[in-house]
Amino acid sequence: MSRVELRIKILCMLDIVIKSALIPEKGILDIAIKDGRITSISAHVEEEARYVIKANGKIAMPSFANMHTHISMSLLRGIGADLTLMDWLQKVIWVLEGEFVSPEFVRDGALLGIAESIMSGTTLLMDMYFFEEAVAEVALSAGVRVGLGFGILDFPTKVASTPDEYIKRAEHFIKTFREQDLVFPVLCPHATYTCSPPTLMKVKELAEKEGVLIHTHVAETKAEVESVKEKYGKPPVKHLDALGFLSEKVLMAHMVWLDEEEKSIVKERGAKVLHCPESNLKLASGIAPVWEYIKMGIHVCLGTDGPASNDNLDMLEEMSTMVKLQKGYSLSAKAMDARTAIKIATLNGFTACGIKAGKLEEGYQADLILIDPDKPHLQPLYDPLVQIVYSAKSSDIDTVICKGRVLMEKRELKTVDMDEVRHIARKWKDRITNFIENLGLKPSV
Amino acid sequence: MSRVELRIKILCMLDIVIKSALIPEKGILDIAIKDGRITSISAHVEEEARYVIKANGKIAMPSFANMHTHISMSLLRGIGADLTLMDWLQKVIWVLEGEFVSPEFVRDGALLGIAESIMSGTTLLMDMYFFEEAVAEVALSAGVRVGLGFGILDFPTKVASTPDEYIKRAEHFIKTFREQDLVFPVLCPHATYTCSPPTLMKVKELAEKEGVLIHTHVAETKAEVESVKEKYGKPPVKHLDALGFLSEKVLMAHMVWLDEEEKSIVKERGAKVLHCPESNLKLASGIAPVWEYIKMGIHVCLGTDGPASNDNLDMLEEMSTMVKLQKGYSLSAKAMDARTAIKIATLNGFTACGIKAGKLEEGYQADLILIDPDKPHLQPLYDPLVQIVYSAKSSDIDTVICKGRVLMEKRELKTVDMDEVRHIARKWKDRITNFIENLGLKPSV
Repeated sequence: MSRVELRIKILCMLDIVIKSALIPEKGILDIAIKDGRITSISAHVEEEARYVIKANGKIAMPSFANMHTHISMSLLRGIGADLTLMDWLQKVIWVLEGEFVSPEFVRDGALLGIAESIMSGTTLLMDMYFFEEAVAEVALSAGVRVGLGFGILDFPTKVASTPDEYIKRAEHFIKTFREQDLVFPVLCPHATYTCSPPTLMKVKELAEKEGVLIHTHVAETKAEVESVKEKYGKPPVKHLDALGFLSEKVLMAHMVWLDEEEKSIVKERGAKVLHCPESNLKLASGIAPVWEYIKMGIHVCLGTDGPASNDNLDMLEEMSTMVKLQKGYSLSAKAMDARTAIKIATLNGFTACGIKAGKLEEGYQADLILIDPDKPHLQPLYDPLVQIVYSAKSSDIDTVICKGRVLMEKRELKTVDMDEVRHIARKWKDRITNFIENLGLKPSV
Repeated sequence: MSRVELRIKILCMLDIVIKSALIPEKGILDIAIKDGRITSISAHVEEEARYVIKANGKIAMPSFANMHTHISMSLLRGIGADLTLMDWLQKVIWVLEGEFVSPEFVRDGALLGIAESIMSGTTLLMDMYFFEEAVAEVALSAGVRVGLGFGILDFPTKVASTPDEYIKRAEHFIKTFREQDLVFPVLCPHATYTCSPPTLMKVKELAEKEGVLIHTHVAETKAEVESVKEKYGKPPVKHLDALGFLSEKVLMAHMVWLDEEEKSIVKERGAKVLHCPESNLKLASGIAPVWEYIKMGIHVCLGTDGPASNDNLDMLEEMSTMVKLQKGYSLSAKAMDARTAIKIATLNGFTACGIKAGKLEEGYQADLILIDPDKPHLQPLYDPLVQIVYSAKSSDIDTVICKGRVLMEKRELKTVDMDEVRHIARKWKDRITNFIENLGLKPSV
């Protein structure tokens, strides 16, 4: 073989071949991956690949899209549990954030949270917090996709002091991150109760000019809805719609308390719902009727919310909770099924971000996971999709691939140094423990 | 040392010492175990032990008591998901049970289910099914505690044909298993809609004569309550109370739909509630208001229900679902807290069976687990009890001890042969798959 022939051969080589994966409803197949995409799925991929994964019947499925989180809050998980939402926020979280949040905190929390996310099969995160540049740094190094946005509010935070300053920073932020590969900028007006109509509309204008998504909190609690009604004479979705804020580019987290008209508005405008069932339960916010939304044709995605209000980033658990909750709450076993739940937790998230992933099909981005069914709780394996939703645990996830890069194999992280993660956890535990003891929130260790 | 001295030394030796376990709210301590009991917990156990476990800061807590299950249904998990309860029972489960249930099926299903139970930290199961002798055989060999009872009904099953025949068999069953070490006989009248008042009262009489517990299903669905009302003029709990059936020896699974008077009756009689939140959600039965029961002083235990209606036997997941559900459903973050959830999932189950376990204290049975907190989702570890409930997964459970016998260490099963479990799963998958394909319930593999 000549040098030229050899070079062509290497250039044509696949990046990865996954041999003998069980693809639900298709069978045992090989998956070929090149340049971040699935190039073919067939009974036998003949071409050579730089890297071969022997799946041996492990179940292949798309990776998860965690569509609403504040990932760096992983450093605060477990503190102030079982308090009411307002006590938790005012007496615990805001005090801790005021004391500790810094680029270092955000970066370290993101590393811890991204390690957890990869280990539970997530390759896309929609994140909202402070100092998102630090999240970008970790995401690019760890190889996961993140929609990045810092919270925009009417009042000052560590990021900015006035709405105009937030907007200016946001413009710069969008320019910085627009051309990045795995991360993309998103505008995050915090909520209707923390952003005045002029602030919201400045965000909207910038989002349209720059062609970016908007990610915000809407109708999380009854109390929030009441306060917005009192202030603006309308509940949150109607208020946003009256401003002309809503479009298919707007992603709205929580959406627990909507009246019938508001549900129709969401459908009409094509805005997306980011459902966070475990956080809504744990913080006693309520149960969003997402099965109703889905039947209306509303685009529903799934998220864990921040790991301090969940208290983990486990999308498989979140998906299982979602589908069971919809059945039990509506008293109908037909309310949502396993296959719909998987679509919500995977495809719908990617689609909402304009990423062609979430399906194991030729031409789709290679964002996928392999699940090991050789566990008592997954046997006998009659119906993999059903059993992933109702029986599996995220610890059954063996391999995680994002855009054609192996992030975990045999449960070993490939792009994150676990020793660094351990060091970070110890460091922040030491710093924060003293502080919360002085706050009177005695942890038990 | 003389022979006699040596013999005395060996006799006095501890069975197990667990070194440096993190006992929540107490600190890093050693745990000494002898003759199945915890003999001491202290900063440093000096005595020699036959077996030493280096916990290295792993979290020690009581093992789980799964207080309502039909464990052998593990062989049917994942079949007919997302159907309504009646379709699932009538078109799937009863047809499959009619075809397949035998002592071999029950034994194999129990082995699979007990392997899963040990791996998720459970050492006590309250089981109701057919051919419970086969469950006993597996439980004794695997070293877990099981309350055993076959379902007693008015109509014929594979166990017996008439109520009198069931009762006769039950008498024999009680005699057979009364003196066993880890297993104990329980009487299981199926429910008020499948047992006439005379059958119920014969069971009650036998239970009192023999001093055994009664385990039954009560008020699982709205439809059940309506049918009992129609037949007897009263909802299930009132009906049972009018018969004089209730006492502190009666364990009632589900208890989703009770009126206010019925709640007071349960409290008054000291009957126990076996709460199965995930099954109640998945089968769209509803959400039992157990926080209300607990505030009234009713004894609440936790169970997974059968693995075909859950679809696993994971008590840690069940506990996490329970506490979040109570908060989200009642819209109060104060509804149940992490520490109460752990008590319900551990101590309350053991206590209901008269077993002194469920606490890490001197004199208590050595039924306990070690949880490995060295996982991103458990870090930083501020409050172990809270983080076990909200952040942990059952795969974090490293070691399981039942009555002073190590059943799992470093996630390796010590008393169950995993190759046999794999063989069983394959065998039943082959047998059952053909049958369900003919039934028109096409699984996707």
